[in-house]
Amino acid sequence: MNDLPRRVSLREVGPRDGLQNEEPISTQAKVELINALSATGLRRVEAVSFVHPKAIPQMADADEVWAQVRRSPDVSYSALVPNQRGLERALAAGFTELEVVVSASDTHNRQNINRTTQESLAALPELAAKAHEGGATLQLIVSTAWGCPYEGEVPVERVVWVARQGMAAGIDSLAYGDTTGMATPTRVVQLVGETRSAVPDLPLGLHFHNTRGTGLANLYAALQLGVDDFDAAVAGLGGCPYAPGASGNIATEEVVSMLEDMGVETGVDLDALLEVAEMAERFVGHTAPSQVLRAGPRSRTVQA
Amino acid sequence: MNDLPRRVSLREVGPRDGLQNEEPISTQAKVELINALSATGLRRVEAVSFVHPKAIPQMADADEVWAQVRRSPDVSYSALVPNQRGLERALAAGFTELEVVVSASDTHNRQNINRTTQESLAALPELAAKAHEGGATLQLIVSTAWGCPYEGEVPVERVVWVARQGMAAGIDSLAYGDTTGMATPTRVVQLVGETRSAVPDLPLGLHFHNTRGTGLANLYAALQLGVDDFDAAVAGLGGCPYAPGASGNIATEEVVSMLEDMGVETGVDLDALLEVAEMAERFVGHTAPSQVLRAGPRSRTVQA
Repeated sequence: MNDLPRRVSLREVGPRDGLQNEEPISTQAKVELINALSATGLRRVEAVSFVHPKAIPQMADADEVWAQVRRSPDVSYSALVPNQRGLERALAAGFTELEVVVSASDTHNRQNINRTTQESLAALPELAAKAHEGGATLQLIVSTAWGCPYEGEVPVERVVWVARQGMAAGIDSLAYGDTTGMATPTRVVQLVGETRSAVPDLPLGLHFHNTRGTGLANLYAALQLGVDDFDAAVAGLGGCPYAPGASGNIATEEVVSMLEDMGVETGVDLDALLEVAEMAERFVGHTAPSQVLRAGPRSRTVQA
Repeated sequence: MNDLPRRVSLREVGPRDGLQNEEPISTQAKVELINALSATGLRRVEAVSFVHPKAIPQMADADEVWAQVRRSPDVSYSALVPNQRGLERALAAGFTELEVVVSASDTHNRQNINRTTQESLAALPELAAKAHEGGATLQLIVSTAWGCPYEGEVPVERVVWVARQGMAAGIDSLAYGDTTGMATPTRVVQLVGETRSAVPDLPLGLHFHNTRGTGLANLYAALQLGVDDFDAAVAGLGGCPYAPGASGNIATEEVVSMLEDMGVETGVDLDALLEVAEMAERFVGHTAPSQVLRAGPRSRTVQA
């Protein structure tokens, strides 16, 4: 049996990455969702993104949401920023943990922000410097790290090159996003290994989607390598913009259910989280893909 | 990187375990499904079960289905038998691979066949002898191997005791069923390890359900131990009788998609299998839980 980390740090990304890929919900609902998540034992919540409202109308009310959230002293809240303007808004709003996304594949990056990967990377040093001046950390999230919906395969060398560029630009940590669920365990092992060789001192988190069912298998593969920092979204919010009906982010309650049973602490109260998952499902108005939300915790028994 | 098996043997259980947990479909549809599955490269198909039609009306037409199937010389077809009577029917129909299910938990076994586990085990030697006399092999499938929907935890010692009893009774191989998706990777590692110590010469297959999202993670954990024999159901047919809306068997196309990408051969043509999955979804008349069916193979790209 491989040694597994004794505990992992989960970042809840439902309010941002999840809701960004759902029909818009009310400001009030977003605030309630973030408040409820903050009471489950989760220590990190990605709350909003400061993007242009025309690009992502789901996040148009980021300032209002954040102003109304009852901030828990036990939770670190983070915000995604696409550029200098967003970073300034996030700092003005008081965020001290920021994230910027760069796609490893040019085509995906162009579709998202009309720039090549290299052009986005060129903007990173100034973003990192401004974040640090403002008293915040900046994480680089590398999307399409295991494949691109437009280009298909994305070479490991390309992804590691992006990580190196981020390191040189002064980012504080790195996360790899499996944007459309193209990762499998062997690919996780390979990319994590190459990344650790290339940028051994950069903290690494992983962000899996369950688009092709491999989300928890990938997480388990990473766990065996000692990775202890994962993103997940309550109820598995999010969907996949390229595959209607497919799953989005791995569901936080599925991750918590599996890890706690394996003796890996998450700090999260599964029953409390399942109540929030029901709330999230109600807010988005459709059946969420979370299996544990359907079946309940494995401790749930029925009468014979 | 752990060494993984170079190839695995998949048994397609959609026509039996899958359809048994769906609303009944026509004989014609079952025949079409089995014929189509037989043309995908799958080498093993669990075709029918010879149970009492009152107990499981979905399988009432087992004889007709089997009579009409166009049997492929490349495929081994198996049948589930609950008792002596079912075994005689299966032998008379010409099956040479039979399976009998015994639950590791008394309550589940009683609910299914009104006997304790011990009472079911006591009938095994005669079943095995009759199967062998009739020129067939008999596999013991141990259900609730990682937990019981009525009793909750099922001790590893109890499951291994059932396996030993099966071995003593003369069964030819063993399969462990995760009936309601209560397995997690560490539990898989533990049970497989203990079983190999107890009955090292008994071939072992694993049968996972994705009820709580851990199906492929469990499969990956087993694969790392060298297990190379797995059940799966096309489209993820089956559902869970104890949790409406929850997933059933792991989806064959999700297994094939993940394993082939990892360099583990399945012999299955994923595109052909996906066409059968669409057919299966049409037959059962509702959206199936298979993620690869929704999102397509990871090689599928979209236009920018």
